[in-house]
Amino acid sequence: MEPNALILNCTLKKSPERSHTQGLIDIVTGHLDDLGVKHETLRPVDYDIPFGVESDLGEGDEWPRILEKILAADILIIGMSIWFGVRNSVCQMVIERLDGTYNSTNDVGQYPLYNKVGGVVITGNEDGAHACAETTLFNLTHLGVAIPPNADTYWVGEAGPGPSFLDAGGPEHPYTLKTASWMAHNVTHMARILKKHPIPPEGNTVPGWQPDECGGHDDRMPAGHIG
Amino acid sequence: MEPNALILNCTLKKSPERSHTQGLIDIVTGHLDDLGVKHETLRPVDYDIPFGVESDLGEGDEWPRILEKILAADILIIGMSIWFGVRNSVCQMVIERLDGTYNSTNDVGQYPLYNKVGGVVITGNEDGAHACAETTLFNLTHLGVAIPPNADTYWVGEAGPGPSFLDAGGPEHPYTLKTASWMAHNVTHMARILKKHPIPPEGNTVPGWQPDECGGHDDRMPAGHIG
Amino acid sequence: MEPNALILNCTLKKSPERSHTQGLIDIVTGHLDDLGVKHETLRPVDYDIPFGVESDLGEGDEWPRILEKILAADILIIGMSIWFGVRNSVCQMVIERLDGTYNSTNDVGQYPLYNKVGGVVITGNEDGAHACAETTLFNLTHLGVAIPPNADTYWVGEAGPGPSFLDAGGPEHPYTLKTASWMAHNVTHMARILKKHPIPPEGNTVPGWQPDECGGHDDRMPAGHIG
Amino acid sequence: MEPNALILNCTLKKSPERSHTQGLIDIVTGHLDDLGVKHETLRPVDYDIPFGVESDLGEGDEWPRILEKILAADILIIGMSIWFGVRNSVCQMVIERLDGTYNSTNDVGQYPLYNKVGGVVITGNEDGAHACAETTLFNLTHLGVAIPPNADTYWVGEAGPGPSFLDAGGPEHPYTLKTASWMAHNVTHMARILKKHPIPPEGNTVPGWQPDECGGHDDRMPAGHIG
Repeated sequence: MEPNALILNCTLKKSPERSHTQGLIDIVTGHLDDLGVKHETLRPVDYDIPFGVESDLGEGDEWPRILEKILAADILIIGMSIWFGVRNSVCQMVIERLDGTYNSTNDVGQYPLYNKVGGVVITGNEDGAHACAETTLFNLTHLGVAIPPNADTYWVGEAGPGPSFLDAGGPEHPYTLKTASWMAHNVTHMARILKKHPIPPEGNTVPGWQPDECGGHDDRMPAGHIG
Repeated sequence: MEPNALILNCTLKKSPERSHTQGLIDIVTGHLDDLGVKHETLRPVDYDIPFGVESDLGEGDEWPRILEKILAADILIIGMSIWFGVRNSVCQMVIERLDGTYNSTNDVGQYPLYNKVGGVVITGNEDGAHACAETTLFNLTHLGVAIPPNADTYWVGEAGPGPSFLDAGGPEHPYTLKTASWMAHNVTHMARILKKHPIPPEGNTVPGWQPDECGGHDDRMPAGHIG
Repeated sequence: MEPNALILNCTLKKSPERSHTQGLIDIVTGHLDDLGVKHETLRPVDYDIPFGVESDLGEGDEWPRILEKILAADILIIGMSIWFGVRNSVCQMVIERLDGTYNSTNDVGQYPLYNKVGGVVITGNEDGAHACAETTLFNLTHLGVAIPPNADTYWVGEAGPGPSFLDAGGPEHPYTLKTASWMAHNVTHMARILKKHPIPPEGNTVPGWQPDECGGHDDRMPAGHIG
Repeated sequence: MEPNALILNCTLKKSPERSHTQGLIDIVTGHLDDLGVKHETLRPVDYDIPFGVESDLGEGDEWPRILEKILAADILIIGMSIWFGVRNSVCQMVIERLDGTYNSTNDVGQYPLYNKVGGVVITGNEDGAHACAETTLFNLTHLGVAIPPNADTYWVGEAGPGPSFLDAGGPEHPYTLKTASWMAHNVTHMARILKKHPIPPEGNTVPGWQPDECGGHDDRMPAGHIG
């Protein structure tokens, strides 16, 4: 069965505001369609997500709805805009909330995001794409996600203020088009490989974890975490 | 056949000076031994490597000797010390020289480092490990390397000056020991997977590359690059 | 007259939750007291601040109340906790909202934060202080703030999870105590110097700005921005 | 008396190779000329500088010749090219060698770079200028340098490979021209201010330092450091 993808568009703009990052995500998802990968895109800023580092912060917290989709996805793509040279606050907030997954495991005792594959989509009117990509992809590896080669695509303009992706000819920019295609292909390739040949739970399980003969590991986890 | 590993210890210190980073590398290679992974470690600073961004800078350049080993390895682990909060100059120089590999391909038209697996080993007396890891692992993905989950291990002490890894009890630090083991296992797992199931050359080959019915791609590459 | 200071404690925790960053801020403000610098500390997370990059996002936006205090301060100190190796989402959100100040000027045509002096206070259970400090101090310089030498103080523990500042003996850590004192003294020294000898508006005014013979520049600025 | 400036062009290219970074430095020094600031530019890569973190590494080490000029300057501007999204290895090496200055003081017990003013000049064919600037300016503050507002100027092109500064119309790029002028003016303004009104040695001297009634502090410093 083909892998499925979740794309989090961590723009600062609520739907239906025009998002340049969405413009580049659309190019990526076009490739995913061609590859037979089912996908869903959502904007975290449309949800009510309190600041924090746990998976469920109680009444009114809508993060668990997003986390559920993340846990069900084979491919996790994080889209973001650059502000002040680094990833924006919504993206940072999303990564912080993923901290909560460290308190749980998958069925074989690894972090819950093991055997998922990650990629990033970045737009800014200038400079900062490397910083956004490197921080985010590295954070994902800490959480258990595998990163294929050329797992990022971005568009930025020349130094200083200027038009953004959709208004600056970004959708025809050869380098961005190339990397969007490479990224879509490589997350798909890697997800297909890991679905068939997952990373074995040998030398990488959470200390203290024990297989549970009588039921799922969720029984031993704090209520409300990621179940 | 088991994968083999090359570890570049990008310390500032020439052999046989005592290298704290080597102390942590030794823990990683102990795990690689247990896993049946053959490995070699070298210090780039022991070689005569001019600054530059090509694979061969001519007479006296010893980088091609290192590059040959990189191209022959399945696993590439970069060790480094932190200076001023970021990866040191020797490590940066090594990454810059790898820029030259963009001018060549593997036999199926991908960048030459495709289907290799990367990891990092970092020591510093304090603060900066995330910066070193994220920049280096991301650079490796751009060059074609795949990054498994938990592909880094590091030791740093508390804020400010203080003793380094070997003098500060680093080799008994639980978190560092855990991550050294996880990293060694995961680069091995991923390398085993990719050796059997490589990333297909579909949607990720260098533009303009054509398979060569009459011989290797090296015939069409500038002399002296990576052959 | 002595300079005054505003400290933004960009913790993720709402008052009156215990904030490790506040613990280190308290050491800094102790020095400010000794130096005769009046100061106020607030937590942005206690305010209703929408994501965005303008100075006033309309009804319910409480950022303008904070911005007013920033504009009235001679010294601006940003406190923050580290999450995933970088500054947290609340701090990033605060910096993003300061983007709105680019649309206005001070009375002589420079950005509104010119002739203010900046510093940072950082805590985390491990690694990432340099990343937090360098990004934040640099962003402040772009906004017009001057940075004295040794303008940061931080505490982090050894690699990996562990107790945070207040629980780990941070308040007695010699390096952190030294840098807290240096930072408090240097922002005060520099603020005293710049109050008497401001950076002249020569070669650094906003293009198009003209002195206004008939009134303040606010007349020519979009309503609601920073006035 | 007017301040004087030293500009280190940390390009990877030895003289007289064409350096794009030099192209932007030339614009900055044009402004310095207009402001009456005497200046000298050199390329560290033209000198024989071993890797290390001390001020004098013995026979053949030419770093002390550069350090002498740094210590004699009021303004220190670091030029660099971006490689792989961060500052290049020559710049990193220069910063590492400045670590040696921590072992000495100025005449009043502060780090030797106190009361100097810093700025950066950055070129790359794309993305990474913020990372270069923030790391370098922050490192300079740790070493004792003060940073005025808008202390950086850079040029980068759109995402991906492309022509560099001199070949891409960089010298006519409005944002880069504006920031080059602002930076030159602000380092000059700040240096003039600090020459007349230096940061007092109160609360920021090296622990253990004592004024020496009988002679210079150099008598108490390890031979060969920065004297």
